[in-house]
Amino acid sequence: MLNETYRAMLGRKSVIRETFMYGRQRAAQIGAENVFDYSLGNPSVPCPGQFTRAMEQLLAEGDPVDLHGYCPSQGDPGFRAAVAAHLAEKFGLAYRAEDIFPTTGAAGAIAHAIRAVTKPGDEVLTFAPYFPEYGPYVEGTGAYLKVVPPQAPAFQPNLDEFERMLTPAVSCVLINTPNNPTGVVYSEATLTRLAEILAEKSREYGHVIYLVSDEPYRDIVFDGKKAPYPAAYYPHTLTCFSYSKSLSLPGERLGYVAVCPGCEGEEILVDMMSQISRFTGHNCPPSIIQRAVALCQGVTSDLSVYETNMNLLYDALTAYGFEVERPGGTFYIFPKALEADANAFCRKAREFDLLLVPSDTFGVEGYVRLAYCIETEKVKRSLPALEQLAAAYRK
Amino acid sequence: MLNETYRAMLGRKSVIRETFMYGRQRAAQIGAENVFDYSLGNPSVPCPGQFTRAMEQLLAEGDPVDLHGYCPSQGDPGFRAAVAAHLAEKFGLAYRAEDIFPTTGAAGAIAHAIRAVTKPGDEVLTFAPYFPEYGPYVEGTGAYLKVVPPQAPAFQPNLDEFERMLTPAVSCVLINTPNNPTGVVYSEATLTRLAEILAEKSREYGHVIYLVSDEPYRDIVFDGKKAPYPAAYYPHTLTCFSYSKSLSLPGERLGYVAVCPGCEGEEILVDMMSQISRFTGHNCPPSIIQRAVALCQGVTSDLSVYETNMNLLYDALTAYGFEVERPGGTFYIFPKALEADANAFCRKAREFDLLLVPSDTFGVEGYVRLAYCIETEKVKRSLPALEQLAAAYRK
Repeated sequence: MLNETYRAMLGRKSVIRETFMYGRQRAAQIGAENVFDYSLGNPSVPCPGQFTRAMEQLLAEGDPVDLHGYCPSQGDPGFRAAVAAHLAEKFGLAYRAEDIFPTTGAAGAIAHAIRAVTKPGDEVLTFAPYFPEYGPYVEGTGAYLKVVPPQAPAFQPNLDEFERMLTPAVSCVLINTPNNPTGVVYSEATLTRLAEILAEKSREYGHVIYLVSDEPYRDIVFDGKKAPYPAAYYPHTLTCFSYSKSLSLPGERLGYVAVCPGCEGEEILVDMMSQISRFTGHNCPPSIIQRAVALCQGVTSDLSVYETNMNLLYDALTAYGFEVERPGGTFYIFPKALEADANAFCRKAREFDLLLVPSDTFGVEGYVRLAYCIETEKVKRSLPALEQLAAAYRK
Repeated sequence: MLNETYRAMLGRKSVIRETFMYGRQRAAQIGAENVFDYSLGNPSVPCPGQFTRAMEQLLAEGDPVDLHGYCPSQGDPGFRAAVAAHLAEKFGLAYRAEDIFPTTGAAGAIAHAIRAVTKPGDEVLTFAPYFPEYGPYVEGTGAYLKVVPPQAPAFQPNLDEFERMLTPAVSCVLINTPNNPTGVVYSEATLTRLAEILAEKSREYGHVIYLVSDEPYRDIVFDGKKAPYPAAYYPHTLTCFSYSKSLSLPGERLGYVAVCPGCEGEEILVDMMSQISRFTGHNCPPSIIQRAVALCQGVTSDLSVYETNMNLLYDALTAYGFEVERPGGTFYIFPKALEADANAFCRKAREFDLLLVPSDTFGVEGYVRLAYCIETEKVKRSLPALEQLAAAYRK
């Protein structure tokens, strides 16, 4: 008896993945250099040399029994201490090693954090547009994902609607800044007001409403700015991070949950998450990757290419008549489609070998996402195709 | 609102871990060399040089963007192909790459396999004594773990009782050979009869009953023998493997589910498991570990120390009057305690600085587990303590 819930999912294909697969077919026909594939958020810059050297040093000098041995179920102590020290220095919050729970990427971080602070039947609020995998992460816990409608054109969270939707059934709020798919960085004003509402409603309902903050793009912020750090505005925050983008290590599956100092339940939340990992058969990310990344705190890949690409695309899109918010970070940009149906617009774009992702998959209609984690030279070569696409709608 | 289910687990400490922690305290008092810690199943031999060299070569020669990039959600194609070829050669079954689903160790393998072939409310049958983590792995899926009583002294599965308990509510059976904690290898006769019962009941109930076979100790078998391979007896088998023991890589968290050729649903089970991984926030084991282990198929650590240790302990225990089945594999031995209460017996053993695990944690009363994955020299030095422990019960 196969599980019908999971079997039924096989029919529902991811639009992002379908677009990517189309791109590979098309590349076989006309050459990969002629397909402008903006579909996948897969980093295109190599990891920093420090990571490779750290791995090589561990392999050369470590005792293999110790190096590859079981971690404690709360994670490698050295990694946890290194992350805590880095966060404490960067954000001025007194994180301790005991506040850090290593996970398999941000995916594992979000799944563990939400399980810890919800029970089946609770509601989890997030803001459209949102990363579609939030659906299964939340559904897997038995809670329900509720989505606050978007606020175009700037795509800061819609806090008035949020306040109305923040009922006593909501045990946690899931945010993502800098944001996939919009590239928008939540402003200080947004985070200040968000924290006020959370504090007010927590008081009113007599229980803490947790904030789960998904921040894999924290290190990709433009114009020399820093992204305001949500936990600094609201202490009951579980910060979910991944090294996939900052260190270009998406396949190595390392991230963490950081429990903010002063968070309700701070003293037991990491132990709870280590219990949760037993139920999913997860039990710690790989030992050698934790140890190597412990030696790379504060280091990133050369992320400057993403800003270069963003500026090229933003300038071109606005020049060609697109309505688009200038991204403050990430490697995504989110222009309005030139017709109401974003899916039809993406089909039209394929005629120019431009592979875009329609916004429906992110819970918003009428926009498209471009993931510009590709070579700058290719971004430049794609601009005439974008111009032709825009021209096709002016006829 | 913290999740009360997981919070409540914080009180329930693992006996194995508590014993291990006691051992560390005691080591601080009298020196680690004087504490005979048989509590933890943590490999004591280093990984083979091939693994280290494979890692070094990948780091030196691989394109980092490719090497550390996202895997397909079904896992690294090269790893899957290498595992399939290895299994096909070793067991004469026509595994294809598409039958292999890489996981985070056997833990992830079992959790994914059981989710794929059960629905909430189903029963999963296993045989006592059994690895205690089977409880959370099964509970996490919403199914119920039911335990077939043990059959001392040889600890082959109790198939008469199994047949009675195999009701239509059972959708899958979970076995473990070579067995933790007994060290017993399921015999050909056992697997033949088990397969007959499964086939008969599947016909009678009109649905396939799946076999999930947990085999992390497959490569640790004594006297030059091979462990009979369950999937060769029953095609509807999901084989769960881990490299933790065979390659001494427990911290690197790599294993797989192998769907047997001819298994009901063979063509969709791996895709289903890749969907399941989205709900647990898991998404593939680390890329570089998959690629390095792909280059180590058919290779193991030097596992001979475990057989040396087993023979020393088995001969000593029988000489000292213990009732004990001679292990056919693993690095565990499971003698009968010298008093009815295994917990009291383990407390008595601590007086001689022998750290044993009482069998209650494995669903059986009156036995103890010794994990002899320690240095042979220390096993030898522990024998007088075992003799004194036995003598204390002859007074």
